[in-house]
Amino acid sequence: MATVQQLSTKHVLGIKYLTEADIRLIFETAQSFKEVINRPIKKVPSLRDVTVANLFFENSTRTRISFELAEKRLSADVVNFSASSSSVKKGETLLDTVNNILAMKVDMVVMRHPAPGAHHFLAKHIDANIINAGDGTHEHPTQALLDAFSMQEKVGDLAGKHIAIFGDILHSRVALSNIFCLNKLGAKVRVCGPPTLIPKHIRSLGVDVSHDVWDTLQWCDVANILRIQLERQDIKYFPSLREYGQYFGINRALLDSLGKPIVVMHPGPINRGVEIASDVADSGHSIILQQVENGVAVRMAVLYLLAAAR
Amino acid sequence: MATVQQLSTKHVLGIKYLTEADIRLIFETAQSFKEVINRPIKKVPSLRDVTVANLFFENSTRTRISFELAEKRLSADVVNFSASSSSVKKGETLLDTVNNILAMKVDMVVMRHPAPGAHHFLAKHIDANIINAGDGTHEHPTQALLDAFSMQEKVGDLAGKHIAIFGDILHSRVALSNIFCLNKLGAKVRVCGPPTLIPKHIRSLGVDVSHDVWDTLQWCDVANILRIQLERQDIKYFPSLREYGQYFGINRALLDSLGKPIVVMHPGPINRGVEIASDVADSGHSIILQQVENGVAVRMAVLYLLAAAR
Amino acid sequence: MATVQQLSTKHVLGIKYLTEADIRLIFETAQSFKEVINRPIKKVPSLRDVTVANLFFENSTRTRISFELAEKRLSADVVNFSASSSSVKKGETLLDTVNNILAMKVDMVVMRHPAPGAHHFLAKHIDANIINAGDGTHEHPTQALLDAFSMQEKVGDLAGKHIAIFGDILHSRVALSNIFCLNKLGAKVRVCGPPTLIPKHIRSLGVDVSHDVWDTLQWCDVANILRIQLERQDIKYFPSLREYGQYFGINRALLDSLGKPIVVMHPGPINRGVEIASDVADSGHSIILQQVENGVAVRMAVLYLLAAAR
Repeated sequence: MATVQQLSTKHVLGIKYLTEADIRLIFETAQSFKEVINRPIKKVPSLRDVTVANLFFENSTRTRISFELAEKRLSADVVNFSASSSSVKKGETLLDTVNNILAMKVDMVVMRHPAPGAHHFLAKHIDANIINAGDGTHEHPTQALLDAFSMQEKVGDLAGKHIAIFGDILHSRVALSNIFCLNKLGAKVRVCGPPTLIPKHIRSLGVDVSHDVWDTLQWCDVANILRIQLERQDIKYFPSLREYGQYFGINRALLDSLGKPIVVMHPGPINRGVEIASDVADSGHSIILQQVENGVAVRMAVLYLLAAAR
Repeated sequence: MATVQQLSTKHVLGIKYLTEADIRLIFETAQSFKEVINRPIKKVPSLRDVTVANLFFENSTRTRISFELAEKRLSADVVNFSASSSSVKKGETLLDTVNNILAMKVDMVVMRHPAPGAHHFLAKHIDANIINAGDGTHEHPTQALLDAFSMQEKVGDLAGKHIAIFGDILHSRVALSNIFCLNKLGAKVRVCGPPTLIPKHIRSLGVDVSHDVWDTLQWCDVANILRIQLERQDIKYFPSLREYGQYFGINRALLDSLGKPIVVMHPGPINRGVEIASDVADSGHSIILQQVENGVAVRMAVLYLLAAAR
Repeated sequence: MATVQQLSTKHVLGIKYLTEADIRLIFETAQSFKEVINRPIKKVPSLRDVTVANLFFENSTRTRISFELAEKRLSADVVNFSASSSSVKKGETLLDTVNNILAMKVDMVVMRHPAPGAHHFLAKHIDANIINAGDGTHEHPTQALLDAFSMQEKVGDLAGKHIAIFGDILHSRVALSNIFCLNKLGAKVRVCGPPTLIPKHIRSLGVDVSHDVWDTLQWCDVANILRIQLERQDIKYFPSLREYGQYFGINRALLDSLGKPIVVMHPGPINRGVEIASDVADSGHSIILQQVENGVAVRMAVLYLLAAAR
């Protein structure tokens, strides 16, 4: 793990701001950590004496636990902070909240915040490494990194590979970060969903658009199926969830009709029977649980590389 | 602590599934750990490099803290997860939630879940040790183990001893687990409460039923007084709480009238003045706080024995 | 850190119960810890094998995180407990809750509780060190200690120094603890605010009262500006927040008009534009973030000294 290589940045705010070399360095490092966490002894002392604050201004159990495990396996000291128990309720500004936490000698901040730009604002004003754990509908860089790492593990180098992203592209930070990441790695990307859930400007990011599920499945090596976000009540889905499942949901019969194997992914949590059928999610096509496992390794890599450059 | 003995099971789902030998092995191990946590140095490295997830889909401060302390004193890495902050709200299935957590290389799961059977379902589908920290009105095995351990510490081997369980037997997982555990250890068990709070089938479990508090107190060596669960609004008590306290509440005058000492227990939290009077709870008869202390030792034993068998 | 000196008390319930020598010992110890947490290696093993429970019956993110970091940097084992997830909801008495936690072999209790006197009640009944992390409108001793420590760091020994406390003196535990602490250290204290927010008996504590902001700023070496507590809906402010800001809010123009430098403090969270303007809070006059940093060092000192005397 004695690397002389470094990231080109002291923050991970978005895939947009990482170079291809950064991404490949993260993957290499993640690979080493993946070996570590599959040993009986899962901990390394790399971040001993580093304090990490996990600031979640929006709920996210799996991302929070994944980061927390990554931090603990690196032997960091961890403090958790969630908006519901915070003085944010008392009307304090974000900058005051974070500055206060940093004044307590916190070295790294992992933050989920609903406002796109909150992370950039912080990065300009504070002296700590910031890792974006999701910001509104903008970016979710570690998810994209673990997705691409998992794809590469399965189908090899992504240059020239066909990757399809299915679902609600309009409201998805996962989609956007995936597109940036896959582009930088030389993959060909297509998004597929109903026209109402695909933003008009998306082609300008260098992706294809399709509304035809079968054709897109036929085209792709990997299908990354995004969650239809039931819980966002501000989103009025057209089509309805039932219609979405019927026309865009991916089930086993559909996959079997392709005459070729493809890799199926999902960032979770899954709506079984809506965007993905159980007989797909639980099949040999699916690498959903490998994504989760790789999530810890990729986050360890990001934390480690940022700490190494301090 | 170099034991060659092992539990007959890789999970602790219920007392029902433990043998008498399992229970005795847990008690022996708990006894060693009790000595450990009464030393100035309360930690042992036994579970270093074991990650335990505490999944609480129902609130339970004292059980959660007791497990958390047990885990930390065994040097385990701990992640906490409670339903209120979970993606369970997003409609994810229990299996998906737990599989995701396990994919992050969690070795043991301590779970409280309102659905009886949730733990069995998990145990069938996942490859980690599961410890039931309470499931609906079904079982709460570590509570029964700490209860029986505390009784034995006070009155010696339980074979042939008279143990009475007072209160709401109908809605109590503690009652059920206690009955299974005491039966396996050869104790004679009687339940006592108003007819409306004692299920009709209870005699089939090999226990006596009484509605006479004084007679039962006279009969028993140990009285385990269960909580009348004020907070369960789905339960319509008959008699009312006030009537319950009057006819079934246990106070000092009642104990003094027995002409013999008995041991008084309560799993907590106590409703002072309802099922138990303060002059009993805080008296020399009561071993309520010893139960709490033993809870940590018994949970350390369960965690240790399951980890040893991995 | 090999001190033979000890605190005169086994609890820190309020500044009222500390001697001047106690306070000076805490400051000396905090100074050492401040050096520790500014080293690359921020941890010391002083509280290894000590278990600390943080019991917060009222929300307080920054105080809770400050204590938690202090405990972790001393290598203590930490369990957190907040009222919202507690069996306090189940109607258990405070004493039962705390006794239960202590029965699990917890050595020290850091508690925030809305009832003044709750800490004294506990201290009388339990055998563990109690640290008051804020009790209703009564005392918040560690805040006062870190405030005075920060003042002393900036202006030297406080004997004879002029310290002004601005704002809502009536509802503030911070004000009361500050007054006790500054008095013991020989400072001259003046409180300043609208008559409706200054309790009538306050002069009996040996402080001056003023309703004139400019005059008080002219008089003082240090201005400790307290939060106007927007979130307490039981408080009807007279004047309104807007009027408060206009007549008592402290802005840069006001400070510049003084013709002399003063030190500006605030315990946070700040209401920018109400009691303090941004051009003051973020100026070179302000030591607000140093207060936060010192908070961890002072709390480490308190924990360390209490543990040393066990």
